[in-house]
Order: sequence, then C-alpha cells, then structure tokens
Amino acid sequence: MARQERAIRTRRAILEAASVLFNEVGYEATTIGALLERIDLTRGGLYFHFTTKEQLARAVLDEAVTLEGVRPQAFKLQEWVDIALLLAHRVPREPLLRASIRLSVDPLSRALFGTRWPDWVAVGESLLVEAQEKGELLPHVDPAETARLLVGAWTGVQLVTEVLPGRTLSEEISSLFALILPNVASSGVLARLDTSPYRAERLLKEARSQAD
Amino acid sequence: MARQERAIRTRRAILEAASVLFNEVGYEATTIGALLERIDLTRGGLYFHFTTKEQLARAVLDEAVTLEGVRPQAFKLQEWVDIALLLAHRVPREPLLRASIRLSVDPLSRALFGTRWPDWVAVGESLLVEAQEKGELLPHVDPAETARLLVGAWTGVQLVTEVLPGRTLSEEISSLFALILPNVASSGVLARLDTSPYRAERLLKEARSQAD
Repeated sequence: MARQERAIRTRRAILEAASVLFNEVGYEATTIGALLERIDLTRGGLYFHFTTKEQLARAVLDEAVTLEGVRPQAFKLQEWVDIALLLAHRVPREPLLRASIRLSVDPLSRALFGTRWPDWVAVGESLLVEAQEKGELLPHVDPAETARLLVGAWTGVQLVTEVLPGRTLSEEISSLFALILPNVASSGVLARLDTSPYRAERLLKEARSQAD
Repeated sequence: MARQERAIRTRRAILEAASVLFNEVGYEATTIGALLERIDLTRGGLYFHFTTKEQLARAVLDEAVTLEGVRPQAFKLQEWVDIALLLAHRVPREPLLRASIRLSVDPLSRALFGTRWPDWVAVGESLLVEAQEKGELLPHVDPAETARLLVGAWTGVQLVTEVLPGRTLSEEISSLFALILPNVASSGVLARLDTSPYRAERLLKEARSQAD
C-alpha cells in the first residue's frame, strides 16, 4: 500500500474512533488519552494527523456534508429526496455522520464549531431552485423555505426516531416525504418520484461498486 | 401571601434558575453550588424543595408537557395545530421549556431521564384519532405516524431555527403546517384552519387573562 494511501486510511480510522467517542460521551468528555486507548497508534502517530480535540471535531464536521450515492436523476426533486434518504440509511450505520449531528445538537460544541445545517440548506435550496426552473414544483413553493424546513424536520425526526421504538430512520424519512411531497411536487412529477425506504441502499451499492 | 402559595412560587423560581443553568452550561456541568449563587435561598431553603440535580432535571421534564393556552375548538385538527403553535411561541420565551428540550437532546441526560417525546406523540395521536372520527382527515392519514412525524419535525425545526437567522420559531412552525396540512386535512376543514404565527400569542393572552 502506498504511503499516501496508508496515511489516508489512518486518518479515517482516527476520525471514526473519535466519532465513536463523541457519540458515547460527548465532545466535552472526550479526551486525546481516551482516543489513544482505542486506536493502534502512538501519540506521535496521532499528532502527525491531529494534535487537538478541536481539530478532530472540525474534521468530523467537514466530512458531514456528503453526497455519496447521489446521482443525476430525471427530476431534480428526486435528487433532493435521494440526499435525505441516503443520509437516513447511512447515519445509523456510520458513527462519523452521527457524531456530526451530535456536535451540531450539543450547544457547547455548536458554540465552538457551528453546524453544517446552513450548508445542507444551501444544497437543498439549490436543487429546489433547479427543480422550480424545470417546472417540477407546485407554483406556491418557496425553495429556500422548503429546503430549510426539510433540514429541520429531517434532524428532528432522526433524534426522535432514536428514542421511539419500532421504525427505522429510513422508514420515517420515507414517510416524511410521503407527507410533504404532495404539497411540493407538481402532479405529473409526484407520481414518478421514488421515496421507498429501500432506495438508498440500492443507490449506495451502485455508487460503491463503481468506485471499486 | 399564604405559606403554600409562597412555597409554590419559590419552587417555580428554583426550577427557572436551574433551567437557565441547564441551558447555559448543560446538565453535566450544572451544580447545586452554581444554582445557589443565582437564587436568593440558603442551601436549607433549596433542600426543602430539591436535594439533587437529578430531582431538578426530572421536575423540569415533568413541566414540559404543557397544554397552557389550548382551548376546545370546532376542529380537533385546530387543537393539534394550536399545541404546536403555542409551544413555538413559548419556547423562545420560557427557559424551562427550552431546558426540557435540551435535556431530551443531550444524550447524557436523556439516558438518565428519558424524554417527553413519547408523551407528545400520545397527545397528538389522540387528537388526530378524534379528528379522524369526526371526518377531518384525508382518508389515507395514519394518526400515529403523523403525530410522530410532527413531534420530530417540530423538534428539529426548533433546533435549526436557533442557528439560522431571520425567522422566528412561530413563523417556521406556521410554515411547517402550511407544508403538511394540505396532505392531512380534508379539503373542507383545511380552508378553515388558522395556522398564523400570531395565533398563539392571542390564545395565550386569553387563557392568562381568564386565569387572573
């Protein structure tokens, strides 16, 4: 394995171990010492990549706005849906993404690092503006407002689904779209959108098999 | 002032001071010592009401499921809307309600005390079942699912609105209903629902002037 590739893998392993800690004990209680107990690295090896907890948190947040698995679709609205479905599939499976939510929700770390919610709103708004230009939206829809509400609703549904038993996040986000899309998509488009809770897994497999 | 009434007011003042602390520094960093610095009470005076931080957090959560200002309406759906609008008006103004959200969102305190989300889902579901029996809902609506999604969406919109500038929580929750109600309310009912961001202030004034 080339030196650079090894460094990338090590960096990723560090970020994932730090994410598990952030998720388990929170930002405040996470320490570099506890991180070193969980990874197969010396302090010097770690410091080659990160020297402070702050750097780790910022790096986790930098990886949070991910479009992995999203591909061009006939409808821009479908891409907007896909982003939310993909995250719903990945967040329960990827500690790093969960950590980025936790860092955003925790007022202490939020005060230090901000959140990625404005970035997500911008991604959604830009897709909805394109959808509007292509005539996919009902006339009254405000792309900025709808993008903002979806980021909020997605975030809260994720939190509440962690607590309430019986439904996966993918199922809940799929239901969320069934609730709001009839008031967003023009009728010709609505019938052709796929909001299945199983869609994300398929998209991700396709993307990852192409990457291999 | 009667002795009992004074005790009730003191208890309330303690809970509000504790809520301000929970909001500012979080549950973990809150101490009885810091609380005593903020209230005009001796340690003995405090211990008459609460002896531990855990008791304070539980009492804050016990006050979180509040229906103040909600009154019987011609449509049960309007009462469901009113609960959400009233909370949207009150949460930015009442530290105790904000603290209950913070305690629910923080994984450490959540692990100790649980959340009130299941209670809110039960309140909403029961209203939506009544609305369904009265023919106020579109045929496909599932009261349990819709109640759950609204609690999630409300919670996340509150979190994200704290971060994004320019819109009040009342405005955002009003927009959230404008987004989802057309797919929930039967058409005759939809046109007669009031989702104005100013509705809650009026309801609350009426309720409080009657209470005086």
